[in-house]
Amino acid sequence: MTHPLTASIVLPEWWEDVVPDDLIARTSEAQMAFAIDLAERNVAEQTGGPFGAAVFAEDGQLIAAGVNLVVASSMAIAHAEMVAFAMAGCAIGHHDIASVGRSSLVATTEPCAMCLGAVGWSGVTSLVCGGRDEDARAVGFDEGPKPTEWVSDLENAGIRVETDVLRDRAAEVLVRYAEAGGLIYNGRAALGDSPNA
Amino acid sequence: MTHPLTASIVLPEWWEDVVPDDLIARTSEAQMAFAIDLAERNVAEQTGGPFGAAVFAEDGQLIAAGVNLVVASSMAIAHAEMVAFAMAGCAIGHHDIASVGRSSLVATTEPCAMCLGAVGWSGVTSLVCGGRDEDARAVGFDEGPKPTEWVSDLENAGIRVETDVLRDRAAEVLVRYAEAGGLIYNGRAALGDSPNA
Repeated sequence: MTHPLTASIVLPEWWEDVVPDDLIARTSEAQMAFAIDLAERNVAEQTGGPFGAAVFAEDGQLIAAGVNLVVASSMAIAHAEMVAFAMAGCAIGHHDIASVGRSSLVATTEPCAMCLGAVGWSGVTSLVCGGRDEDARAVGFDEGPKPTEWVSDLENAGIRVETDVLRDRAAEVLVRYAEAGGLIYNGRAALGDSPNA
Repeated sequence: MTHPLTASIVLPEWWEDVVPDDLIARTSEAQMAFAIDLAERNVAEQTGGPFGAAVFAEDGQLIAAGVNLVVASSMAIAHAEMVAFAMAGCAIGHHDIASVGRSSLVATTEPCAMCLGAVGWSGVTSLVCGGRDEDARAVGFDEGPKPTEWVSDLENAGIRVETDVLRDRAAEVLVRYAEAGGLIYNGRAALGDSPNA
């Protein structure tokens, strides 16, 4: 088997239409509305799953954003939050987003077990969530085994958590995706297990 | 701020010296020895942290491997396991490693909270660990808030877990890295918090 030397996550072609370089959104609601727009566009363009995420600096400047690209990129790890973190690192040229100051990760659904772990390593100092785990689970996505006290775990590590920001709108994107027959891709097909968010 | 459209993880230049296309290792010990060799080489070449990981098919064929490239790639998420999963997806052209049958992730240290979540989404059907969480913590790396019952969580999801495979050799790589003054990179510098594995 040939082993590639590079693995790339490539944003969809429509990206530049909706993500201007100078985007600024100052409130959690405005930032979430932007992330939900990304999730909706990702579904409409059939480029991935119904999830969006964005990293904003404290002054509201967009550092980077992502959408779910699991299937398109052939990477189970390419959840929206992970794509946003990968792009943020490339944008600032440093693995630690805290090197540019305080920042927020805005995620249209509460992060799964993997993305939750990544929040802790990323250097962001706050997490803003739209839909809840249960909204994702309600349409068949799995969030994985998260520590029960994940919100207080983050807060104890100095990462502020805000939940239910535009929750209804975020959850609607999940429902519409499922109702339209969108692929509930499954990272554990061999196991006959549930799909991942 | 300019937003890049691609984020790439690039394996180090020494990769092809030590990772032949046709590598086969049939036992957990042989697979772990290979992953430890990668971790050691990563340290010796100063291309990243003291962690290696590899995905092997059931017949012992190497599907893909990775080393910690957090600093080199400017990505907090580029832990060895995540790099191996990203490369595996590229190698097989599918997000679900289970699409090529049963497989194992071999990790020189028990996976951190993020990588543990990724194991569940990756499609691998077993996890083989070298050093323990406590070995990583002993030299200053943080593993993050993992569910207490993470081994049984995986096993309940049909993922077999084998621990302590060549543990002493794996732990030695961590100790030597720390003693040589290797960077214990910190994903949460702004918080004055502990570094990540």
